Amino acid sequence: MTTITGVDVHDVRFPTAAAGDGSDSINRGDYSATYVELSTDGGVAGTGFTFTNGQGNEITCAAVRALAPTLIGVDLDGDPLAFLRALTAHPQLRWIGPEKGALHMATGAVVNAVWDARAKLAGKPMWQFLAELPTEDLVAAVDFRHISDALTPGEAAAILDKGRAGLSERLEELRREGFPSYTTSVGWLGYPDEKVRALTRQAYAEGWRAMKMKVGGPIEDDVRRAGIIRAEIGPDALLMMDANQIWGVDEAIANMARLAEFDPYWIEEPTHPDDVLGHARIQRAVSPVRVATGEVAANRVVFKQLLQAGAIGVMQVDACRVAGIPEVLAELLLAAKFGVPVCPHSGGVGLCELVQHIAIFDYLRVGTSLDGRMIEYVDHLHEHFEDPVRTREGRYLVPTRAGYSSDMRAASIAEFSFPDGPAWN
Amino acid sequence: MTTITGVDVHDVRFPTAAAGDGSDSINRGDYSATYVELSTDGGVAGTGFTFTNGQGNEITCAAVRALAPTLIGVDLDGDPLAFLRALTAHPQLRWIGPEKGALHMATGAVVNAVWDARAKLAGKPMWQFLAELPTEDLVAAVDFRHISDALTPGEAAAILDKGRAGLSERLEELRREGFPSYTTSVGWLGYPDEKVRALTRQAYAEGWRAMKMKVGGPIEDDVRRAGIIRAEIGPDALLMMDANQIWGVDEAIANMARLAEFDPYWIEEPTHPDDVLGHARIQRAVSPVRVATGEVAANRVVFKQLLQAGAIGVMQVDACRVAGIPEVLAELLLAAKFGVPVCPHSGGVGLCELVQHIAIFDYLRVGTSLDGRMIEYVDHLHEHFEDPVRTREGRYLVPTRAGYSSDMRAASIAEFSFPDGPAWN
Repeated sequence: MTTITGVDVHDVRFPTAAAGDGSDSINRGDYSATYVELSTDGGVAGTGFTFTNGQGNEITCAAVRALAPTLIGVDLDGDPLAFLRALTAHPQLRWIGPEKGALHMATGAVVNAVWDARAKLAGKPMWQFLAELPTEDLVAAVDFRHISDALTPGEAAAILDKGRAGLSERLEELRREGFPSYTTSVGWLGYPDEKVRALTRQAYAEGWRAMKMKVGGPIEDDVRRAGIIRAEIGPDALLMMDANQIWGVDEAIANMARLAEFDPYWIEEPTHPDDVLGHARIQRAVSPVRVATGEVAANRVVFKQLLQAGAIGVMQVDACRVAGIPEVLAELLLAAKFGVPVCPHSGGVGLCELVQHIAIFDYLRVGTSLDGRMIEYVDHLHEHFEDPVRTREGRYLVPTRAGYSSDMRAASIAEFSFPDGPAWN
Repeated sequence: MTTITGVDVHDVRFPTAAAGDGSDSINRGDYSATYVELSTDGGVAGTGFTFTNGQGNEITCAAVRALAPTLIGVDLDGDPLAFLRALTAHPQLRWIGPEKGALHMATGAVVNAVWDARAKLAGKPMWQFLAELPTEDLVAAVDFRHISDALTPGEAAAILDKGRAGLSERLEELRREGFPSYTTSVGWLGYPDEKVRALTRQAYAEGWRAMKMKVGGPIEDDVRRAGIIRAEIGPDALLMMDANQIWGVDEAIANMARLAEFDPYWIEEPTHPDDVLGHARIQRAVSPVRVATGEVAANRVVFKQLLQAGAIGVMQVDACRVAGIPEVLAELLLAAKFGVPVCPHSGGVGLCELVQHIAIFDYLRVGTSLDGRMIEYVDHLHEHFEDPVRTREGRYLVPTRAGYSSDMRAASIAEFSFPDGPAWN
């Protein structure tokens, strides 16, 4: 038995806004993290974080502090569902969600820190820790309340049992070839045309064959930029587009009719993330272009509906907006049930580090296919992590260190702590 | 021109948890408010708040502080949509919503404070201030982005123009007879059977002919308590049931089959508030019993879908979980377009005080009917407000003071401030 003895939270912010990195039709900020360290009596520290956009990071930090009393004394090997619900169904805190927004993001940070500690105790990287868990342990971690009309515990168990077959061959393949990915570093809205062209050319030369651009500015600008990128990458490479929620439903359909000539592979976040019915209408209108969403989908209930409504062709789970590993597991299982590929949302602060584990576990044990699977890659801020992602010719290499690759370097925490770190003085 | 010169926020908590008041299948806490006071250079102070359940109120207070810099210097008579979007589409803060959870609740508090100041400057109670605004001013306050596929500005204007006809007759009727309401004070889950029976009998004797009970405990307990209440109120009075989100979709359908013998008028929050498709399935299964929801619906996009999917027979807007008056206005207009009656969520801290204005304005200018309309009434905490609701034989009397009835008594703020007020020492 290993118990949690302390909870520390750090408000860490990187001054990225000035360069236009990460700018899109909705967001423009300083990439930040609400970074949680759990002390335990077992000789390991669990770490987790949620990504924010600068201002407001103090709010998610406050939410972590509100959750902290519920964490102290928790047995890391106790009932995972009882622990999860102590946070997600807290009789007082739940009201300011429920299961969404700042509180749920903080929940994601602390739940991931618990699972990081568990993987470290087992001496395994997170993908391996999960892939080797017995089916009943994985099923026991999932909260099926409010999703059992779409996925029963029995169906989940069947998916996970089936995933055992061929697992070692799939792992061998990943170790040999890496996991497919795509890059979002070429087409932020804040970049001028010539920078987009140069970055696209450079990425293509480095081996990337799938690239994402931001859309949602004036449509003529979007058309011009899409033309620049498509001309650089030729007809065979994949071009994804991301509207970051700016459009209305009818507007999304009209604008995608304009952009269809550049053969987009998917349109990401075409409209408001809560609009399940709107996404379903857009998906019917733009097919065979796929609708992709999920980076700010609040929880498994929203993903359940996106799948039930046939609203998405690509599901983009986020590692720490939802309630950490157990809720991500629910989402992977739902996607497998409905036959929709998962391409995790990444970028931000440390999201690449986390989602590589999710995608690898999904391939090994849940989705069991690489067809249509890619991990987003953004080339920012990896240097602040103890176990940064490694890529080779547009593919993620399998991580080997124990845990969730979430440990931030102590020097980075000190340098970028807000408002007192040297970077902010 | 009147501008905002200062923003104060108070963490006010009332120790209600011990008595079981407000207890249901999900929530059990100390009714609290994140209370905002805006100073202006126009001789009025605008007040607004969002209701929380105790712990976590410091998080919504932190969110108000994060929004405060955006408020200073704002002209109260400037473009209302530009002001609203400066908050709801803030390029950094939006990420920790978007438009949901702690941040959006804080937005509701500050936006309502702005509208309270506007009504006070006009010297009118909020219902009257809104009812007398020109159609174009009301339409200009609504953010149609992400709802225009269901309601266009032109349709909204037509509804509001039509609402001018017969307005003075409807107002005369309300002044004479009050606004219908129902009581939730009889059947909290924390109350023993005999207390439920005694409170029901008392409420009936006081003239209430519509009462709401909490369900979602063990189904046999729900059945027994429903039997007690129905026996007391006879076959003609309305009995509403409220599950506070605890059930899964299939569970809700099965449990309502058991409870149908007590002739419920509506089932409120039968499942997760984000589950539009689930509510639609439940509504089809339990008809003619109406599905009611909305007290924790995140925003107008969720309400839009509930209406588009035919998922609700009663729409329960909340005054301060969404972005205040402008978003409530969007929701009232959507409900009118789809022909669904609005019965605002109330109770909590000061919600009765707010929603009476919403319901009266809706009757005067938007919905223009009392058919199926009732304001929830809970007999708690009114003594802490400067302009508390007044009821007579189960009906709300029309408020007369200028503003949104949101001013909390200074002595109450001092007494119940957390953690330093005398009530918490």
